[in-house]
Amino acid sequence: MLPISRFPVPELKDLPEDIREKIVAVQEKAGFVPNVFLTLAHRPDEFRAFFAYHDVLMLKKTGNLSKADREMIVTATSAKNQCLYCVVAHGAILRIYTKNALIADQVAVNHLKADITPREKAMLDFAIKVCLDSQSVGDSDYALLRSQGFDDEDIWDIAAITAFFGLSNRMANVISMRPNDEFFTMGRMPR
Amino acid sequence: MLPISRFPVPELKDLPEDIREKIVAVQEKAGFVPNVFLTLAHRPDEFRAFFAYHDVLMLKKTGNLSKADREMIVTATSAKNQCLYCVVAHGAILRIYTKNALIADQVAVNHLKADITPREKAMLDFAIKVCLDSQSVGDSDYALLRSQGFDDEDIWDIAAITAFFGLSNRMANVISMRPNDEFFTMGRMPR
Amino acid sequence: MLPISRFPVPELKDLPEDIREKIVAVQEKAGFVPNVFLTLAHRPDEFRAFFAYHDVLMLKKTGNLSKADREMIVTATSAKNQCLYCVVAHGAILRIYTKNALIADQVAVNHLKADITPREKAMLDFAIKVCLDSQSVGDSDYALLRSQGFDDEDIWDIAAITAFFGLSNRMANVISMRPNDEFFTMGRMPR
Amino acid sequence: MLPISRFPVPELKDLPEDIREKIVAVQEKAGFVPNVFLTLAHRPDEFRAFFAYHDVLMLKKTGNLSKADREMIVTATSAKNQCLYCVVAHGAILRIYTKNALIADQVAVNHLKADITPREKAMLDFAIKVCLDSQSVGDSDYALLRSQGFDDEDIWDIAAITAFFGLSNRMANVISMRPNDEFFTMGRMPR
Amino acid sequence: MLPISRFPVPELKDLPEDIREKIVAVQEKAGFVPNVFLTLAHRPDEFRAFFAYHDVLMLKKTGNLSKADREMIVTATSAKNQCLYCVVAHGAILRIYTKNALIADQVAVNHLKADITPREKAMLDFAIKVCLDSQSVGDSDYALLRSQGFDDEDIWDIAAITAFFGLSNRMANVISMRPNDEFFTMGRMPR
Amino acid sequence: MLPISRFPVPELKDLPEDIREKIVAVQEKAGFVPNVFLTLAHRPDEFRAFFAYHDVLMLKKTGNLSKADREMIVTATSAKNQCLYCVVAHGAILRIYTKNALIADQVAVNHLKADITPREKAMLDFAIKVCLDSQSVGDSDYALLRSQGFDDEDIWDIAAITAFFGLSNRMANVISMRPNDEFFTMGRMPR
Repeated sequence: MLPISRFPVPELKDLPEDIREKIVAVQEKAGFVPNVFLTLAHRPDEFRAFFAYHDVLMLKKTGNLSKADREMIVTATSAKNQCLYCVVAHGAILRIYTKNALIADQVAVNHLKADITPREKAMLDFAIKVCLDSQSVGDSDYALLRSQGFDDEDIWDIAAITAFFGLSNRMANVISMRPNDEFFTMGRMPR
Repeated sequence: MLPISRFPVPELKDLPEDIREKIVAVQEKAGFVPNVFLTLAHRPDEFRAFFAYHDVLMLKKTGNLSKADREMIVTATSAKNQCLYCVVAHGAILRIYTKNALIADQVAVNHLKADITPREKAMLDFAIKVCLDSQSVGDSDYALLRSQGFDDEDIWDIAAITAFFGLSNRMANVISMRPNDEFFTMGRMPR
Repeated sequence: MLPISRFPVPELKDLPEDIREKIVAVQEKAGFVPNVFLTLAHRPDEFRAFFAYHDVLMLKKTGNLSKADREMIVTATSAKNQCLYCVVAHGAILRIYTKNALIADQVAVNHLKADITPREKAMLDFAIKVCLDSQSVGDSDYALLRSQGFDDEDIWDIAAITAFFGLSNRMANVISMRPNDEFFTMGRMPR
Repeated sequence: MLPISRFPVPELKDLPEDIREKIVAVQEKAGFVPNVFLTLAHRPDEFRAFFAYHDVLMLKKTGNLSKADREMIVTATSAKNQCLYCVVAHGAILRIYTKNALIADQVAVNHLKADITPREKAMLDFAIKVCLDSQSVGDSDYALLRSQGFDDEDIWDIAAITAFFGLSNRMANVISMRPNDEFFTMGRMPR
Repeated sequence: MLPISRFPVPELKDLPEDIREKIVAVQEKAGFVPNVFLTLAHRPDEFRAFFAYHDVLMLKKTGNLSKADREMIVTATSAKNQCLYCVVAHGAILRIYTKNALIADQVAVNHLKADITPREKAMLDFAIKVCLDSQSVGDSDYALLRSQGFDDEDIWDIAAITAFFGLSNRMANVISMRPNDEFFTMGRMPR
Repeated sequence: MLPISRFPVPELKDLPEDIREKIVAVQEKAGFVPNVFLTLAHRPDEFRAFFAYHDVLMLKKTGNLSKADREMIVTATSAKNQCLYCVVAHGAILRIYTKNALIADQVAVNHLKADITPREKAMLDFAIKVCLDSQSVGDSDYALLRSQGFDDEDIWDIAAITAFFGLSNRMANVISMRPNDEFFTMGRMPR
């Protein structure tokens, strides 16, 4: 079984106070510590910047993107980057938010075959373009999204989430970040 | 929710006897009828040829590929073809055969991050090359596989399974074949 | 000169009766045994499934695809997969069926420069999409083909022929199946 | 002439104190305000996270990457993402740090034709792989970089800088961030 | 049947004397006027430069490339550019020079399956790299070709022929230059 | 510092009279000898054909393409081929012709973010298609360019310039032609 990172993984007790507190809070909520917290804690300053950025984007209270929309973007684009950690971890969260056991695999394998609305399809088409071909984004992309009810701030949100997780995907791929076993099964069963 | 096929799906009672018998047998074993049986039964002659071919390759008794090896090949290459049906259905069977709840998602998202042996990695590297770039297959591919303990008949097996499911993937993508809900969760929980 | 296969090629006399009969029948009709029959006979069970599938698709009596249409699909998509055997052998058959000495090379090199009708162009555009990018096939592809007079069953036919020869192309590439010399010149001269 | 952003650009006087202070400090040092500061200030919280992350990576005091190395990574990978802002702005900073008027254009157009050392070439080869194909990064990449004198922490640095600017490139492409005219000419003339 | 060019095609009698003479000489030798002479004569000055360049490269008396080698390069690389005119016309000339009825189709469809020597394979591998990915050409390509007996002037020849026909391929594709019917059958029959 | 060519570079005094004269004339006009003249003079006959072709296309007096248009085409397509020499040298000439210090870098990095007119964008879109995907050029490309005021002769011009510099890019990449230092700074400063 592969380790959770190619790099040294700090023990909770050796981490700076603020980071330990953040991790303990997550652990209390989720029941386990997602490996991204431990593996990135190898570099405390980058950890702080990474999660500050993450929280701004993913915990944002305004705009028209639901939490499920955001996780759907992360799952679909992380699949394009073949990032095992993010597909598995954010796919799990997507299942939880949507209470839909199928959606994460559908979106990860081929969003064109997923049970999603035209609005969600347009959102993912755009996110995938930002992920794979951002240099070609232009007026027609904005027009298409607006025709589906997204405003410009929503477009920024989709792009920023995609861009941020593109960063995350690359780090996870390079350090071989391993998803926790828990994520593979979360949200798959009716309660 | 999307239907299981863009094409008409026959009812069991309307099918030719031999096809109905085959489907009933599967149903008894699996507890449900995998959609591939119903959707392809739209064309009985093609159904017969498809499953004859499938069974020759997947139920073959000889050679060095285990049943799990074969399902691993199907899962990894179907992911490259973004075939939702095959990734989900054969990923489920892979979990069952390996009694490993994680392996299917690992192999589907990025086999380079999966908990697999060097022999399995060589097998999947080759299968993916046959899937995406068969025109470039040559001596060096044979040499590499032989160095991992595969003989030439095993190489034919890997290629044939990949090629056959390449056919299957294309049909599933074109008719929008939908995986049964059951497959998404099969083999994910310890019993 | 390269051999006709990387794998052992059985002699006619050593083959099971049904396979020998099929091969002899082809030989009588064509004047020679196309190598695909000998090279795939290395595995009799797969041979039977392969040709059963082949015959269902290529000898089908119903629908709006002519025999020439089918060979045109095979020639164009096999060129995308860089399959020497299928481009040369099916290009030859295409020349015979169309009595057109130029069409096979035109379609193999660049179907956009071939002397074909808009209906044939739409058919080949779709076949090539199924060949190279089946994951993106969707409603707009169906609409386009219908606007050219194809019905849904024809669309299944185009997809199935492409998918089946995608299998064939991959096997031919992996075993280095060599086209018979006869195919290179068949149908090129006015009689 | 295109504007500096598709989105509203705040005036300095309307920005939160901490952001205004940061911008004023940059302005005093550089003689002008790089547009990235103004365009991203449209979203103060993301601005803070972005520059916190940026500063951790680019102002890091430890490790074997020089400041010029870091800017070379940014310039080369931003060119792959066709990000006009980053190629022009970081190319300018690269010229300043290296006192080399040619290096930025060389690295942006084709790093294989640049006047760089084998160590720098290995660094850029890896950065470009992280940028375009991070899913394939593995042991052999680590081995190659180590053979050029990089340690694992340096490898993390190269990856993190590439990943962070991949985020930046995507945002700049989506909002059409325009580089300041000053950057085009900075560092091009002998003083 | 498509015309031989999207652009006006001059009549022989309306052409400048030097061009008419050149065309008449070709006609006497070949028995017909290859369409490239008529279609490019639409622009006499470009015609002169084009054929001056062509003749320097293809009629060169020195170096280790045979005439057949040169036509093999043209056929293989024109196939990558999907240029119908050049694949058909230069494939014909290749058959004539080699007295080999099979080689042109083999090289056009997949040179890895052609009856060629390791020296010829190295030559075509390099030509195809120059055709599709010249930006990556470097020391290792030179070393490989030298190990097969090519000297640096031969390498220039391979590159220049590939580059020149890359120009020709693009013009032929844009103006839809049609190959003469004669080329399709030339050199295919034993005399 | 890399040399100006992988191949021997002749001295001016050793060159044939006509070539020396041409080079001296350029030197008098430009103030230095662009390396393309010296490096290609290694082969006098190819030199003559190359510059004859170049001059026909780039000094043409008729048609609707301005000199700046032509240099813009060269700069944008050479960037796609990652040709350092042509991007730097023709980018410099583009700055001179347009008296615009920014345009060359904009067009080389991402023409979609450049300060260009819709007519220029259509011209570059087409040139880039000819550069990267000429096999797909067809009626719709002609229609689009005509709608922007280009006539068919202009379309030939755009294609021919792109095709010729595709040749030039490949030669420059293979011989590692180095741009003169002068080009990097030409036209960047207000006079």
